[in-house]
Amino acid sequence: MDLTKISNPSFLKKLDKEQMTEVANEIRKFLIENLSVTGGHIGPNLGVVELTMVLHKLFDSPKDKIIWDVGHQAYVHKILTGRAGQFGTLRQYKGLSGFPKMSESEHDVWETGHSSTSLSAALGMAAARDMQGGSNHVIPVIGDGALTGGMALEALNHIGHLKTNMIVILNDNEMSIAPNVGALHDILGKLRTAGKYNSVKDELEYILKKIPAVGGKVAAAAERVKDSLKYLLVSGVFFEELGFTYLGPIDGHDFNDLERNLQYAKKVEGPVLLHVLTKKGKGYRPAENDKIGTWHGTGPYKIETGDFVKSPTTAPSWSGLVAETVRKLAREDKRIAAITPAMPVGSKLESFAAEFPERFFDVGIAEQHATTMAAGLATQGMKPFLAIYSTFLQRAYDQMLHDITRQKLNVFIGIDRAGLVGADGETHHGVYDISFLRHMPNLVIMMPKDENEGQHMVKTAIEYNDGPIAMRYPRGNGLGVVMDEKLKTIPIGTWEVLREGRDGTILTFGTTIPMALEAAETLAEKGIHVKVVNARFIKPLDTAMLDQLFSTGKPIVTVEEAALAGGFGSAVIEYAHDVSSTVSISRIGIPDEFIEHGSVEKLLEEIDFTAENVVRTMELAVKGLTHAEREIV
Amino acid sequence: MDLTKISNPSFLKKLDKEQMTEVANEIRKFLIENLSVTGGHIGPNLGVVELTMVLHKLFDSPKDKIIWDVGHQAYVHKILTGRAGQFGTLRQYKGLSGFPKMSESEHDVWETGHSSTSLSAALGMAAARDMQGGSNHVIPVIGDGALTGGMALEALNHIGHLKTNMIVILNDNEMSIAPNVGALHDILGKLRTAGKYNSVKDELEYILKKIPAVGGKVAAAAERVKDSLKYLLVSGVFFEELGFTYLGPIDGHDFNDLERNLQYAKKVEGPVLLHVLTKKGKGYRPAENDKIGTWHGTGPYKIETGDFVKSPTTAPSWSGLVAETVRKLAREDKRIAAITPAMPVGSKLESFAAEFPERFFDVGIAEQHATTMAAGLATQGMKPFLAIYSTFLQRAYDQMLHDITRQKLNVFIGIDRAGLVGADGETHHGVYDISFLRHMPNLVIMMPKDENEGQHMVKTAIEYNDGPIAMRYPRGNGLGVVMDEKLKTIPIGTWEVLREGRDGTILTFGTTIPMALEAAETLAEKGIHVKVVNARFIKPLDTAMLDQLFSTGKPIVTVEEAALAGGFGSAVIEYAHDVSSTVSISRIGIPDEFIEHGSVEKLLEEIDFTAENVVRTMELAVKGLTHAEREIV
Repeated sequence: MDLTKISNPSFLKKLDKEQMTEVANEIRKFLIENLSVTGGHIGPNLGVVELTMVLHKLFDSPKDKIIWDVGHQAYVHKILTGRAGQFGTLRQYKGLSGFPKMSESEHDVWETGHSSTSLSAALGMAAARDMQGGSNHVIPVIGDGALTGGMALEALNHIGHLKTNMIVILNDNEMSIAPNVGALHDILGKLRTAGKYNSVKDELEYILKKIPAVGGKVAAAAERVKDSLKYLLVSGVFFEELGFTYLGPIDGHDFNDLERNLQYAKKVEGPVLLHVLTKKGKGYRPAENDKIGTWHGTGPYKIETGDFVKSPTTAPSWSGLVAETVRKLAREDKRIAAITPAMPVGSKLESFAAEFPERFFDVGIAEQHATTMAAGLATQGMKPFLAIYSTFLQRAYDQMLHDITRQKLNVFIGIDRAGLVGADGETHHGVYDISFLRHMPNLVIMMPKDENEGQHMVKTAIEYNDGPIAMRYPRGNGLGVVMDEKLKTIPIGTWEVLREGRDGTILTFGTTIPMALEAAETLAEKGIHVKVVNARFIKPLDTAMLDQLFSTGKPIVTVEEAALAGGFGSAVIEYAHDVSSTVSISRIGIPDEFIEHGSVEKLLEEIDFTAENVVRTMELAVKGLTHAEREIV
Repeated sequence: MDLTKISNPSFLKKLDKEQMTEVANEIRKFLIENLSVTGGHIGPNLGVVELTMVLHKLFDSPKDKIIWDVGHQAYVHKILTGRAGQFGTLRQYKGLSGFPKMSESEHDVWETGHSSTSLSAALGMAAARDMQGGSNHVIPVIGDGALTGGMALEALNHIGHLKTNMIVILNDNEMSIAPNVGALHDILGKLRTAGKYNSVKDELEYILKKIPAVGGKVAAAAERVKDSLKYLLVSGVFFEELGFTYLGPIDGHDFNDLERNLQYAKKVEGPVLLHVLTKKGKGYRPAENDKIGTWHGTGPYKIETGDFVKSPTTAPSWSGLVAETVRKLAREDKRIAAITPAMPVGSKLESFAAEFPERFFDVGIAEQHATTMAAGLATQGMKPFLAIYSTFLQRAYDQMLHDITRQKLNVFIGIDRAGLVGADGETHHGVYDISFLRHMPNLVIMMPKDENEGQHMVKTAIEYNDGPIAMRYPRGNGLGVVMDEKLKTIPIGTWEVLREGRDGTILTFGTTIPMALEAAETLAEKGIHVKVVNARFIKPLDTAMLDQLFSTGKPIVTVEEAALAGGFGSAVIEYAHDVSSTVSISRIGIPDEFIEHGSVEKLLEEIDFTAENVVRTMELAVKGLTHAEREIV
């Protein structure tokens, strides 16, 4: 069948097993082919082909609410709800999102990107249904990795207590992004190997019948034990204890097994947990054989070989540079330990883990715990390196404030994927960390201009012993600059003049420095000579340099690939007001709106975050025009 | 004995049970008497007298790390570590903190205030010990309420997986602040009534012996069942499944039971969970009889009667005003539901819960889940009122950003305890919410000047259907103003001129308005006539009014009881720069440091947050002096 002809999933209701299998095969073929061109989350989606089809066969979306945790596994759902034709634009600017999007389809009832939100959302929807007298089903689909996120556990605890009707699909693929960790993972492992509940129960009943009937005290004891047994021998005891009816494990690629159990689940009163075993990458050999998460999300690849089509670069990746510098320093400095919340691959910590297994901690999807565990390590004189993506550090705001900065502990926070991230879109852009960290007392925040300065900043962070210090770095690769052999420290709170100029100053840091230099060059051609400053410390500011700049009375333009509200430019104007400077300061950055997905280049262009805008803004400022006047110009 | 003579806890090691009981009695008497004068967390501390004594008898603090979750139950620990003499200054400015404080004692190895951090901190300390080759014990003490916090569950999952040596004391008093909720609470309830593990095991072994020995398939089945039984019949199966050795339940007021089990726990390899049953308020009748949390933390009281010594006020409490207005509106508007993370009493939601039980959700200590559940409700057309303290909303930063504001859902967030909170100190001040919320797109943030405007703002929030809307309100009572009978809505983003003046403007909101009016009065006496504006919308700003104010060229002073970095004043100067205004704007607020405990009055004075400072700042601004020049003046 032509998948692009599907307008809604109702056609599935009439299919028999054989026809379902045919459609499944076509979906797999479609995914493998399309994603080989666009890239995308191939592994997770190949794993849920049958599951998604059965959900849409047995339930009535959107009346019944199917909620995809994390959301990157919703491609099959998108195909079945009429979006196959748009896969050529997947994750591209103005194209199909890689995550559920309410604006794309009424079948997308919840938007995500970050993990572990589905159960809370589902409980909200179920509670609304109960209050409104509705009778629809609510079906969150959550992976075994996402289940270890604290908010998912909070929700499990609450759902089990409320006993609301809900069918939780635990999509257990033994691997979320990296191989999973945690006691819950161990529990699932036992369940997987234990076989089905029914067989155990049969054996139990046989045995119980063999227990001789005796009188008095012993009989009472026997009865109590029998009761305990009935309760406890259910194999999903962990979930049963939490108030769920556990069904499973179920073969997530067997239509019969899935349909039978989901039909049963629909009839159960109260919350059900359906433990479905799936295989990530199912049906595509290279992805199936993946052991470390390479095929979780990819760029384009060659279908036949599974080779990735990468644009060649000799510059080191930022994650790699930071992780490797930390590893180098850890050889000399036994205080150093590394922590990642489920991102050993993304944060390029595999080598560190291999060389220092006893000093490496992958805590699972658990950013709050990771952050406070780092604080705990620091109280004992260790120097933890917490490698965390900017967007996921949002989960640990309170732990940063209450545990790390308030106690002024020596933690080195590596804020990876700072700035726009591109295809993952609005849930993943790392553009808020400056605004949410800058008001935390005791914290140093820095960002290097290139990978050479980056390695020196790592050294600086490790040597710094006066509280927490954070280093931001972007997604992707460095500039390919020459690397110093010997590491050095950079004095805290010092900026660096990259280009001299008498007519004004551009203050910026990190990835936008090349853009600022380009703007300065263009301005010079127009006879306006501006200074370009590498404002590598976002906190504390280089107030000595600012005082000097203010004293010249020349205009300043700040440029940051981050939210303007409360950001770096805001810090500069706060300081200007504190010292009563009336110098003209214009800010360029991310406006007060969520930025969608697309290439970083395209997105920056869209918000006028360009060298041209820097030139224009500086020109007008130099002319002394007000903003209102500028608009007329 | 004279408790103030205690310098360290080593004296406990030599005491027999009778002497321990004597000391326990003296500690109780000391607490009841001292707290009747100063107020404090009486209930939790009376509950842990024996437990704390036994911990200090059997372990060697500070080598062994005792970590108090939340920390308000550490008074006995403070007495035993040489701080009894300072209890007269408890929770007062420069006096003894109500929480563990590293600066007070080497025995305070971890600082808290927020719940559920102890397990992550403990794992950090245990991991550091293991890396450093140490052999000390690590003993986090966590309540049954705090255990439902997501980060504690994340840590449990990780600890159980790592199998590190650690003794987790689960202090189960069936009530943290309010009666606890959640499936975990139900599990603990079953364990409490189930009696001891040992007795069940004895019965089990007796029964197993009765199973006839048979051959073949049945014998194999019987063996498998026996194995399962051995594993599963441990009563703390939930914790055993998570990788802990479960011991309990233990009588937390019985020295023998406590000592025996703790001695055993010291020898167990891997993590142990010691389930200790305690009674909040133990030994003081009024506190023991408390069913709803009144005696969790109190002001001064009369020992004989248990009557509270309250300063009389006729003004409604802010929490009460908001909750009651929501309740009134809920009678007409069936979309309204209320959610609290374990603060039904503090947020004064008892009446709402009684009138609308099916629309009320106490989710336990689980701010992340509460916030995203509210988002889920809103997707279904409900209008959830999320009542949450400013300091605890820090836990839900990502849920506010990723789930509520990004999806632009109609949630009404009631930010309670905004501003300085006084005695609870630096972990509890609600001074960061503006800085961490202001950069979230789609969010409206407001704060009323008095309770009459407050009730209209509640109405405004409920009627607003263009995304999330937050209303901040302080701890304590309103001003006692006349209340309008009919509720009305306030146009979003509009400020209100409270006093006219031609020489300058004070922009402020909420609790600081009386101070601003006082300053204006004083300035008037000096011949300087300033406008005072009720800047009740923090986001969006009233840009029409700002444009007008900027056009006069007269100086502006912003005043906010909140962090200056990225705060309200910062928003005003951002806007000024965006429109190229060079008007003088001075900001008064909370500087970039953590503010300790003490009366709010005293704390504000300490940071020069006073009417005098407003007067001084405005005077100098009107004279046109720069900040540097002002300092010389």
